[in-house]
Parts: sequence; C-alpha cells; structure tokens
Amino acid sequence: MSETFQFKLIATDGKARRGVITMPRGEVRTPAFMPVGTAGTVKAMYLDQVRELGSDIILGNVYHLMLRPGAERVARLGGLHDFALWPHPILTDSGGFQVMSLASLRELDETGVRFRSHIDGSKHELTPERSIEIQGLLDSDIQMQLDECIRLPAERAEIERAMEMSLRWAERSAKAFGNQPGKAMFGIVQGGDLIDLRVRSAERLAAMDLKGYAVGGLAVGEPQDVMLATLDETLPVMPVDKPRYLMGVGTPDDILQSVARGIDMFDCVMPTRAGRHGLAYTRFGKVNLKNARHADDPRPLDEASGCPASRDYSRAYLHHLVRSNEALASMLLTWNNLAYYQSLMSGMRAAIEAGGFDDFAAATKSGWARGDLPPYG
Amino acid sequence: MSETFQFKLIATDGKARRGVITMPRGEVRTPAFMPVGTAGTVKAMYLDQVRELGSDIILGNVYHLMLRPGAERVARLGGLHDFALWPHPILTDSGGFQVMSLASLRELDETGVRFRSHIDGSKHELTPERSIEIQGLLDSDIQMQLDECIRLPAERAEIERAMEMSLRWAERSAKAFGNQPGKAMFGIVQGGDLIDLRVRSAERLAAMDLKGYAVGGLAVGEPQDVMLATLDETLPVMPVDKPRYLMGVGTPDDILQSVARGIDMFDCVMPTRAGRHGLAYTRFGKVNLKNARHADDPRPLDEASGCPASRDYSRAYLHHLVRSNEALASMLLTWNNLAYYQSLMSGMRAAIEAGGFDDFAAATKSGWARGDLPPYG
Repeated sequence: MSETFQFKLIATDGKARRGVITMPRGEVRTPAFMPVGTAGTVKAMYLDQVRELGSDIILGNVYHLMLRPGAERVARLGGLHDFALWPHPILTDSGGFQVMSLASLRELDETGVRFRSHIDGSKHELTPERSIEIQGLLDSDIQMQLDECIRLPAERAEIERAMEMSLRWAERSAKAFGNQPGKAMFGIVQGGDLIDLRVRSAERLAAMDLKGYAVGGLAVGEPQDVMLATLDETLPVMPVDKPRYLMGVGTPDDILQSVARGIDMFDCVMPTRAGRHGLAYTRFGKVNLKNARHADDPRPLDEASGCPASRDYSRAYLHHLVRSNEALASMLLTWNNLAYYQSLMSGMRAAIEAGGFDDFAAATKSGWARGDLPPYG
Repeated sequence: MSETFQFKLIATDGKARRGVITMPRGEVRTPAFMPVGTAGTVKAMYLDQVRELGSDIILGNVYHLMLRPGAERVARLGGLHDFALWPHPILTDSGGFQVMSLASLRELDETGVRFRSHIDGSKHELTPERSIEIQGLLDSDIQMQLDECIRLPAERAEIERAMEMSLRWAERSAKAFGNQPGKAMFGIVQGGDLIDLRVRSAERLAAMDLKGYAVGGLAVGEPQDVMLATLDETLPVMPVDKPRYLMGVGTPDDILQSVARGIDMFDCVMPTRAGRHGLAYTRFGKVNLKNARHADDPRPLDEASGCPASRDYSRAYLHHLVRSNEALASMLLTWNNLAYYQSLMSGMRAAIEAGGFDDFAAATKSGWARGDLPPYG
C-alpha cells in the first residue's frame, strides 16, 4: 500500500481509461463503481458481501452522518471505517446535494448553507470549511468540496452564479483540507448544460492542482444525450493524470457511455434503491419482480451469474418475497444488483486492458437489447 | 440418513432429555429450537446463516403460506424446501393458531374453520384434512394436527369443548396423514390450565400412537408458573419414546425451565421479532439497543460470542442502525438473537450429555441475573 494518494493509468482504449488509485487503506481499480453507504451502511447488505462483489471503495453521505449519529461521535468511535467495519477506502460527499434535496428551510449564501434536519428539525450549517472538517472527522479517504448543484433546466445566470460560487468554495475547501498525503480532496466541475461554463469551471479547477476532479450537476433531470454531450466537451479540459468522477450516475448504460468518454469513478443509489423496490438489474436488462409473470417461474434471475442471489433463488421465490414485503427481498435483490453493477465494471476494466472496449460495449448493449427471458411455461 | 422417521434418546439428566430425531432430510438434535420461517423466510436472515448457527430444522406457517404464495403453487415449485433453499427438515404448524390471531370473520365448527385472509379478504377454509393436505403440498417433514387453541383464562366448559374437538381433529388428521414412513404427524395436547383435562388429552393422544406430541395452548397469556405447573403434570402422561414439542415457547428462561421438565422441541418468534425491534438477547439478559446509553459505546454485544453480529459490531453502531431504521439493524440483531438461542440449546444438549444440566442451568441463570454491562465511560 502507498502512504500517499496516487493515481496511475494502466491502459487506455479509445477514450476509455483503466487505472488504479492507491492510498493507505487500499487500491481502487478504475473504472470503479462505489456503492452508496448513506448512513454508514449499504442498505440491506453486510459490508463483507459488498467487498466480495469487488467493491474497492464505498461512499458515505455527510448530510446523513452529520445529523445521525453525528460526525464528532463517529470520530470518537474511531472514524467511519471502524464504525461500519469497512477498513477499505471511503469517499464522502460534501453534504450539499442532500441539503438541497432533503433538508427544509434552506438558506444559501456565499458563506454556506443553513438548514433544518429532515429528521428532527434541528438547525445546522454547512460551509466549505465545516464540510471538510466533518469529512475529516469521518476519516474519509476521498473528500469532496462543498458545491452548489442546481436542477436542470435552469437560466444561464443562475447556472453561472452557482458555478462561480462553487469555484470559490473549491478554493476554500482546498485551503481547509490542506496537505494530507494519504488522502485526497476532489473539486467539482459545475456549469449545468452550458459548455462554455463547464469548460471555464474545469479549467479553473485544473489550475488549483487538486488530486482528483468530479463532474457534478449531471443526471439531475436532463436527457442522457445532454449529459453525454456535456461530458464530450468537458472531459478534454480535465487533467488526464487525475481521476475523474461522475457524481450520482447512473444506469448501466449511463456508466458504459461515460466510461467510453473517459470517466473513472461512479456512485449511484440505483442498484441499492431498485433492489428495495423489487427491481433487478441483469445482463438482459431490468426485471420487475413484482410482476405476476414471475409467480410460477422456477428459473433464477441469471443462472450464469456467480452471485448466489442471482443464480440460486427462483424468480417465483423472489416474487413471493417482494409481494410479502420481506426483508429478504431487499437483501437478495440489492445483492443481485450490486453484483451486476460490479461485474459490469470488472468487464469494462478487463476489456480496456485487452483493447476490446468497443466489442465489450457492443456485446453488453446487445444483451440489454435481447431483454429478459420469455415468460415461463 | 434414515428413510424412516425415528426418535432416539441419547441421554437424560433428571427429567431433561438429550435426543435425536432422524428423518430422510436430516437429523434434529434435541432439545431443539426451531427458528420461525413464517412465509418461507426467517425474517432478515439468509437461510445459510440460520443453518450455520446450528439450526437443524425450521418452522413454516401454513396460514401464511396457504394465502401467499399458495400451497399448490409451492408444490408445483418443488415444495417448500426447494422454494426457500432449505434442504433440511421443516416442521409446519396446522394454520389454526394464526387463523385465530390474524384472520377476520372466523366461523369455527366441528368441520373446521372458515375465514377471510388478512391480506386481501379472500375466503378460505381449513379442516383437519385440508391442513394435512396443505402440509403435504409443502412437503413438510413434521406436520401438525389442526387444533383449537383458546386464550387463557377461560371457562372450564369452553376449555373442555375445545380440547375434545381437538382430539377428534387429531383422529381425522391422523387418518388424512396415513402412513408416510419418512415423515411424522404430531398430535397436540390441549386442556388449558386444567390438569385433569390436560391428562385426559395426553392419554387419549398417546393411545393414537402418533410419532410425536406437542403441548399446545400454553404461553397464551398465563403466568410462567401456570405454564410450568401444567407441564409438570402433563409431561409424565406423555410417551417417553416420542419427541415432545412445546409450541410457541418462549423466552430463554421458559425454554430452560421446560427442558428441565422434559421438553424436546421449541419454536418461537421472540428472537426474530425482537431483532426487528432493536432488542438483543445475550448471556447477560436482554439489551434494548434503542436506548441512548448505547450511543457512544464502542463495546460489542458479547465479545466472547462466536457470532460476528454479537462480537464485531459496536453497540454504538447497532444503536445508530436501530435509530435510523436500517435493514442492517434487523439483520444483525436477528442474527445475534438466533445465535444466542442456538448457543443456549447447544449448551443444554452438551450439559445433559455430561450429566451437568443443573449446573448449566444455574450458571445460565446467574449470567442473566448479572445483567448487561454497566454503562460505558
């Protein structure tokens, strides 16, 4: 293990990149998918399972953890790794995104954002400095700057104002983070769907020489082609030698298309949230296990999978568990979904190394296009 | 494995019995605790985990399974073992108890009981014959007669009427079950808290020469000493060479006291249900993890336990999960609770074999009396 935070590109295939981030708590093979561990738990999973699926890093949410159990408490308990029994790398977000989507009575200005907890109404404040402080208390390995992420579509003036303030917050965050050799703080490119603003944001962040860069404010309501077009124009301006993280993305196809454009890291609640709502991701697309067509189907979700949840349990049983609102439904479908996401990532990594990313992408899309098995019987 | 259903006593210590039930799907070491797998799942557990904790047999509920997914459907899918991926023995109840506690618009007469589903209001009927038919469709290894279980306290006439009808239903059930060498149908002793009725019920059932006998209608609201006094008078009338199953019992102390009196088998929702409500059973009694005293406590539930849920996770983390209503709270606490119950059973089995049951019981009670750890810090 390295005592410093390092990123190395191992191979490229077209614009797709195969790399590795090395840091004291372990290596992250990229392209990487980071399961979302909102409140110190990847919902309905044991973290041992999450690890066994090939997850090198998980994400923790500052907003949730600062409200409950509290960052100072987690620090007293040895940090988030010890608290949740995950000794491997953790990335934390800044809290800003959830403040905007979950908290009430938000007041945002140049200083930061004041809000009330959605849990108990208590008052809190997040500034760039406090967010970095909280992420330090959690002992997070990759910390994110506080930014302002606005929903699309939006007016140019509003997008520009938020982007410029996010740049100033990046500088404050970098100063608050200081020099921590084994850890990293990433800046976040903003600018909505306006290419010139994205480019300006990316260039100004690059000049700060941060250890990694995220693209934020995408997958917030815009069509996929807008997101991809934005990436097409933004990624060339971002440093080649730093990891690139597309925040909150996405569907398997979003991820495939973004890796093709040079993204290295992803996080998304889709596989875990879908698993709690009866939806399974497979090589052949999405399967809704609530659907009555599965009630008498003895076939597994994917008999060729290495994951027990995908291979061993019948659709009939999964359907029954979903209909009965059993915890095991969430446990098995989340397991299946994370297994599928991580197998997609591992397939992409191998394909890039072998110089066969396009073929892999075509075969993957062809599987999705084939669709699920025909009805049983 | 035996092709027939057999029960063998290996050792006795006082009235406590150490035995083994052998049947085609496996052995059940007694005294045995059967985790409750209501709807084909032991809630919030993978059945692999349930097995690894030392569970030789689990219980399935006819009432739940007949309503959803339906007994005929389970049969088409290969029976309950294949459906739930539990290849080991399964005991099913008759459905009668849940009809009384969960269904609406119940009409009970000599024929059986008609009721409406608590799920969708649909009409159903359970007769002694239909209950055995359903248990056969589920491919249950140990099937229970339909009986009428009434709440205590109750009038003598009412207790006697229900007990006498349960005896007639036992005969109808035995006839419906017929001769199935690898399986067993158990009769159920009823009679409330009235010893002469219990004795009459036990004697009449013994005369039917069934493969096992349960004591039903206890732990339904009466004090523990009434239950134990009833067992004291009833057990001597029950056949020595057949397994004895105390239905729906109970707390660790109920189980310890009942094994001391000669009971061989137990089932209860307590460890699983408590696990979903933030309660942990340990060697030192019950721990309520909702309690704020655990919020900053880095100590595990029981550092000497072999179960990861009990040994590896801090009380602070468990408290956080319970407060946050996370699925992992149920998963870990149910795991801890079943681990404790099964370690209690295994401790009793070893103690009976070694002729040290009284010492084991005294040490166990002394642990409970010691109580939980003092507050941290």
